[in-house]
Amino acid sequence: MSFPLSSSSFSDKKNAFYAQSGGAAAVLNASAAGVVAGVMAHKDKIENLYIGRNGILGALHEDMVVVNTHDDNLIDDLLHAPAGAFGSCRYKLKSIEESEREYARILEVFKAHNIGYFFYNGGGNSQDTSCKLAKYAAKKNYPLQCIGIPKTIDNDLSGTDCSPGYGSVAKYVAVSILEASMDLASMHQTSTKVFVMEVMGRDSGWIAAAAGLAADERNLGPDLIIFPEVPYEEYKFYAELNRIVARKGFCVVVVAEGVRGPDGNHLTSTANKDAFGHTQLGGAASIIAGRIREVTGHKTHFAVCDYLQRAARHIASKTDVDQSFLVGKKAVEFAANGYSNVMMAIVRESEQPYRWSVGTVPLVEAANSRNALPAGFISKCGFHITDACRRYLAPLIAGESYPSYQNGLPAYRVFNSVAVPKKLEEFTL
Amino acid sequence: MSFPLSSSSFSDKKNAFYAQSGGAAAVLNASAAGVVAGVMAHKDKIENLYIGRNGILGALHEDMVVVNTHDDNLIDDLLHAPAGAFGSCRYKLKSIEESEREYARILEVFKAHNIGYFFYNGGGNSQDTSCKLAKYAAKKNYPLQCIGIPKTIDNDLSGTDCSPGYGSVAKYVAVSILEASMDLASMHQTSTKVFVMEVMGRDSGWIAAAAGLAADERNLGPDLIIFPEVPYEEYKFYAELNRIVARKGFCVVVVAEGVRGPDGNHLTSTANKDAFGHTQLGGAASIIAGRIREVTGHKTHFAVCDYLQRAARHIASKTDVDQSFLVGKKAVEFAANGYSNVMMAIVRESEQPYRWSVGTVPLVEAANSRNALPAGFISKCGFHITDACRRYLAPLIAGESYPSYQNGLPAYRVFNSVAVPKKLEEFTL
Repeated sequence: MSFPLSSSSFSDKKNAFYAQSGGAAAVLNASAAGVVAGVMAHKDKIENLYIGRNGILGALHEDMVVVNTHDDNLIDDLLHAPAGAFGSCRYKLKSIEESEREYARILEVFKAHNIGYFFYNGGGNSQDTSCKLAKYAAKKNYPLQCIGIPKTIDNDLSGTDCSPGYGSVAKYVAVSILEASMDLASMHQTSTKVFVMEVMGRDSGWIAAAAGLAADERNLGPDLIIFPEVPYEEYKFYAELNRIVARKGFCVVVVAEGVRGPDGNHLTSTANKDAFGHTQLGGAASIIAGRIREVTGHKTHFAVCDYLQRAARHIASKTDVDQSFLVGKKAVEFAANGYSNVMMAIVRESEQPYRWSVGTVPLVEAANSRNALPAGFISKCGFHITDACRRYLAPLIAGESYPSYQNGLPAYRVFNSVAVPKKLEEFTL
Repeated sequence: MSFPLSSSSFSDKKNAFYAQSGGAAAVLNASAAGVVAGVMAHKDKIENLYIGRNGILGALHEDMVVVNTHDDNLIDDLLHAPAGAFGSCRYKLKSIEESEREYARILEVFKAHNIGYFFYNGGGNSQDTSCKLAKYAAKKNYPLQCIGIPKTIDNDLSGTDCSPGYGSVAKYVAVSILEASMDLASMHQTSTKVFVMEVMGRDSGWIAAAAGLAADERNLGPDLIIFPEVPYEEYKFYAELNRIVARKGFCVVVVAEGVRGPDGNHLTSTANKDAFGHTQLGGAASIIAGRIREVTGHKTHFAVCDYLQRAARHIASKTDVDQSFLVGKKAVEFAANGYSNVMMAIVRESEQPYRWSVGTVPLVEAANSRNALPAGFISKCGFHITDACRRYLAPLIAGESYPSYQNGLPAYRVFNSVAVPKKLEEFTL
């Protein structure tokens, strides 16, 4: 198989490099779709789109692919496939001083392939990578336009109203806890009284907060949310829980994996022993559910969402898909218009009705600060979200964007891509 | 609020009793919708539909409601709401000898409310309840037609090709593991190599088997399935796992909660200690993931689906919804035609193309045997499903049946119902 590749030998047009970085997300490929669409719309400036496999490793190892832009289904299929179609990575470039050879290698690869545009799609660490690479390229007088494309399910990127990737996890978590609460509502009289669902969020309660969207006046959704921002005082929690069970017969709890005790330590940091007598992986829900059962005597169940929550393209937020696509497309547009050293950002133009646009923020700003869950988003008692939080969150989960199905399963595509021929020696990390 | 209730005082028509029993399911209310539709179609024979709250407890406590059959949205809303709209129960009637006063009480309630039809919607224990009640009513010369409506996510009901409720869990599990496998495929090079997802199934591997539908020639879906039917020999498992990681870079595992070691004991039966030093709830995935990490050194993650899998109406199987509705509707039709002492059953008329119909099976058959996962459905090595299993399972997850959404969340209805006025003294269990 070979795809039509334009040769840049006789052109002053540059090639573009795009890669996916950090944890996977349901809508990460929607940004890739946006980048592809952007490149197709700017063929006057950009020759070819080279996609790095496994993030920045693709640049370091000169491991790049091209997709068939003449494939009519490409963009739609990318829009609907979860995770990272081209491989992502958890690999953070060290400082230029510590690891100049890596930066030099990347520029060597880019020079060999006439790459003048760098699009990096990820969270804070990825924006940091773009930022450092831009600095190094400038220092070396290598013409490279570096544009960050935001993506993190943690919603902790600064400079953007929300992070692409977050809305879909938020929707998954809210839908799941709504459904589970209906299960408890129907069963609690003779069965489980307390259900604990663990969601991601090592330091930040953004994902746990999203579960709060399912809480409604019908007594459904979560009754108590345990945020990593609020030290977990277990007896205060049991008091609340018992009050709720006495009132409505059952209690639905959401806990962030990063919950910490009053001593500041993660609940899951203590070694647990398994059936074989060996240390076992932590699991906040399991610990908390076990304790609830012991202390209150209630029958308790727990679920751990783990990767299911961030891979769940089948229940992605349409808003999130749209935003992810557009930050990708706009990244190319801004690059074509001469921008560099910026990250695309979602701008909230209006809350009710929700209106948003895509703007830019300096890369250095996105890379070096953290968008924490505002204190005003957690209720005084520490176990709920506030109305302000609800107003912020609600539009992010709005709309559905279903994949097509075949034989009962989502017809997620695995993308054929063709390797860009290597021109350089191998590189050892 | 009051709904139009027909008075049966001047009629020889009887009222019908319907209740939901056992564990909740995404499509349990679809059977309720079928019963409502059936009663509306047989007003010549059936006066009112009385729905017991919390299963058989509703009969014992004379705790019954009526729904507004003049509400045009009722059937559609029931078709799309998860769990048990009228409350379910885990309450098994003892033998008539042991607990005759309960049986007598039920007939007293039924007599007071002119109830001549008993529709009980659940799994093996529920069919057993119907069976015993039919026997007792016959002994007491009380005219009661008892019809079982099948529902269990475990797919272990005998006499029916599949159990309503199972197809939707199967679809949830297959979709979830497909998505998670794509997450690993994109991240494994620098992150998690092994993912373990725990599904329900204390004694039976039907649900774990369904995950196997996601395994495809693209190296996605589960690589290894741990069935409760196959004694878990951990070092044999590590050998397989290492082979798979060596070949494709990562390994996706599904484990049934009821996994047992070669000694026949559940892996989760040993007391685990949590961060507080107290006994913690079991969790097969957590134990197995912890051990994999220890023995192989691979970075490992795990998820526990728990109630999410059986409440997930948002990803229900259309086939399952259709079957659940029709067994409810046909139950009333068969009753109106004089049938009793039977459970509705799904009959597989043809596999490819899949065609099914609704028939009957004697209640006693459904109540007293168990539909085990056939040995021929598990591969020789014990970690996969066979082609025969795949052919059986595939049609059960076919088709989507989405709820409507409002503000990004499924618009699941909570059903207003009106209590049927009590005529008798309170009853103490």
